[in-house]
Amino acid sequence: MKVDGQHYRTIWLAEDGWRVVIIDQTKLPHSFGTVVLESEVQVAHAIASMQVRGAPLIGATGAFGLALALRADPSDAALAGAYERLLATRPTAVNLRWALNDVRARVAVLKPGERTAAAYRRAAEICDDDVAVCRAIGEHGLAVFHRIWERKGRPERLNVLTHCNAGWLATVDWGTALAPIYMAHDGGLPVHVWVDETRPRNQGASITAFELGRHGVAHTVIADNVGGHLMQHGLVDLVIVGTDRTTASGDVCNKIGTYLKALAAHDNGVPFYVALPHTTIDWTLADGIGTIEIERRDPREVSHITGRTADGRIETVAILPEGSPAANWAFDVTPARYVTGLITERGICPASRDGLAGLYPDAPLLRALR
Amino acid sequence: MKVDGQHYRTIWLAEDGWRVVIIDQTKLPHSFGTVVLESEVQVAHAIASMQVRGAPLIGATGAFGLALALRADPSDAALAGAYERLLATRPTAVNLRWALNDVRARVAVLKPGERTAAAYRRAAEICDDDVAVCRAIGEHGLAVFHRIWERKGRPERLNVLTHCNAGWLATVDWGTALAPIYMAHDGGLPVHVWVDETRPRNQGASITAFELGRHGVAHTVIADNVGGHLMQHGLVDLVIVGTDRTTASGDVCNKIGTYLKALAAHDNGVPFYVALPHTTIDWTLADGIGTIEIERRDPREVSHITGRTADGRIETVAILPEGSPAANWAFDVTPARYVTGLITERGICPASRDGLAGLYPDAPLLRALR
Repeated sequence: MKVDGQHYRTIWLAEDGWRVVIIDQTKLPHSFGTVVLESEVQVAHAIASMQVRGAPLIGATGAFGLALALRADPSDAALAGAYERLLATRPTAVNLRWALNDVRARVAVLKPGERTAAAYRRAAEICDDDVAVCRAIGEHGLAVFHRIWERKGRPERLNVLTHCNAGWLATVDWGTALAPIYMAHDGGLPVHVWVDETRPRNQGASITAFELGRHGVAHTVIADNVGGHLMQHGLVDLVIVGTDRTTASGDVCNKIGTYLKALAAHDNGVPFYVALPHTTIDWTLADGIGTIEIERRDPREVSHITGRTADGRIETVAILPEGSPAANWAFDVTPARYVTGLITERGICPASRDGLAGLYPDAPLLRALR
Repeated sequence: MKVDGQHYRTIWLAEDGWRVVIIDQTKLPHSFGTVVLESEVQVAHAIASMQVRGAPLIGATGAFGLALALRADPSDAALAGAYERLLATRPTAVNLRWALNDVRARVAVLKPGERTAAAYRRAAEICDDDVAVCRAIGEHGLAVFHRIWERKGRPERLNVLTHCNAGWLATVDWGTALAPIYMAHDGGLPVHVWVDETRPRNQGASITAFELGRHGVAHTVIADNVGGHLMQHGLVDLVIVGTDRTTASGDVCNKIGTYLKALAAHDNGVPFYVALPHTTIDWTLADGIGTIEIERRDPREVSHITGRTADGRIETVAILPEGSPAANWAFDVTPARYVTGLITERGICPASRDGLAGLYPDAPLLRALR
């Protein structure tokens, strides 16, 4: 999408055709800059330090990491070592493992001299495939937006609430939950986005607000506490969020706090949609609440916050009394019964086993591919 | 309650018997200090700048403000002027208006020479009455805590979730929602409190965590997004919150985000209690969502946050991208159907017209008194 009028993806090749350029997302939203990666070690650092984040983007970056590693040394041993080191940067990231497995399998059967070019080619394909998947999600979502806008009598603005960041900066372009928002905006549908701050890591207030603002999409940042009040007063026409993992029965694991918004949407008759590529569906799981283990992160994410001082410095401040402990669960599970629909690259389905099976009759095959 | 072993109220007379001492709550949670007020002007500043906050405490402080004004000049004109100036400091604070009206009515009928002593006497009574009301709320709430603890088979800890600050620092002592928590702790019931951060003003992460920590109550600060997840996993035994205004039908207006916790409690069978003195009941209102106008505050409360740097300075940082707007609704309304019970100084009742009428058969009289 655009940053101040210029189109960007989140990862691309430098003009020399081999170095890899990323946006340093750790500097957002206070400054926008790029980093050039010349080695597997630099790629590993970029993933581990969250200069790149978001499952699809991490996968694409890992693929380019293998390409850079092979460019330095195309031997079997080098391939094996780079695979292990890159995988260790975010061990629970499903897309990273998938991308590394995919590239490794394709190049391992080649002669060393052919591996680098093949890895670069495959990494580029992974990026293009991600863009195509997100574009498809966007188009299916856009149809939903139009339907709701028409049903409401074409209001002056279509108010969409989102939580966390499922935007282009988490993917290669477009994003998942934000893809239909960008398409709506670009196509002239008067969309306005309520951006949940998304404590404690504030991905909404920082990344989502940055994305939307720089692309020119009307938006307003609100505290995570506000969505229910807005829905009670008819100020939200629909909710759309991404997901980190969706069970085969349609339970949605997403950023902590998503569940509360789904409850409020249900209580007020507001449609609640989840946008997802099929790669985030876990076909092995049914009961999301009972089976998905929720990551607990550093309490410091709750007790400290980083921002920009009046004189432009980036400063981290403590916001709890000394001695008060904090706890930090990163995700929650929204039961399928509160989800109006799942918006995938293949279309929209109910959040249920039957719904997903209808869109993905090849699910066992997809599962084997991951 | 106690701060590091020493008992405090939030407002008291200095040893000289006329100056008024308060805790400067704007410095919490990073430092604890008191301010001595010698004039009505200083009292007005203390209220307006939120050195004192919380409806009952604001009322008590206003009463002492009139006493200080009369000490300087007990004339009718001075009384009228002080009344107007003090009332203007927080014009929507019901308790402030009530306390100022009460003191003014009592002293206006006296000779000027008798007014100062009468005002001091009445201000002290207002404080003592507030403590008695909060103590009664605490005792009724404590019975609820015990009942739930017994019903759950006396677990190792009773997990209570609260939102915002309805503690002793918002009153003269004890607090409302926190009163039963202090009594449980003091009486040996193993209570542990999940403290909602309460964005955007962070009254939970700062004031509530400070109160509980300094009194020695086990607690953990969580992002406002977390409560639903905790309830899904049986980690919350009950929720208790305060209220700024409760309708005659039991709809509860409280800090923004309260409604979302009530929804989650309902969805997971967790009792959801609201603690309130009768002074916060608005007998003129029925439908809370339709009739209570929700205050919108400065968006800067969302876009900026203040904390303590590593080297001990207090610093304010911006956390939004430049140019991203924010919106800041301060309260929401929880419909009565999601409230398990109202805990008042007279006992506990269902959140309904009948429930409240049962406890307050003298309601029309109470209404006239306000």
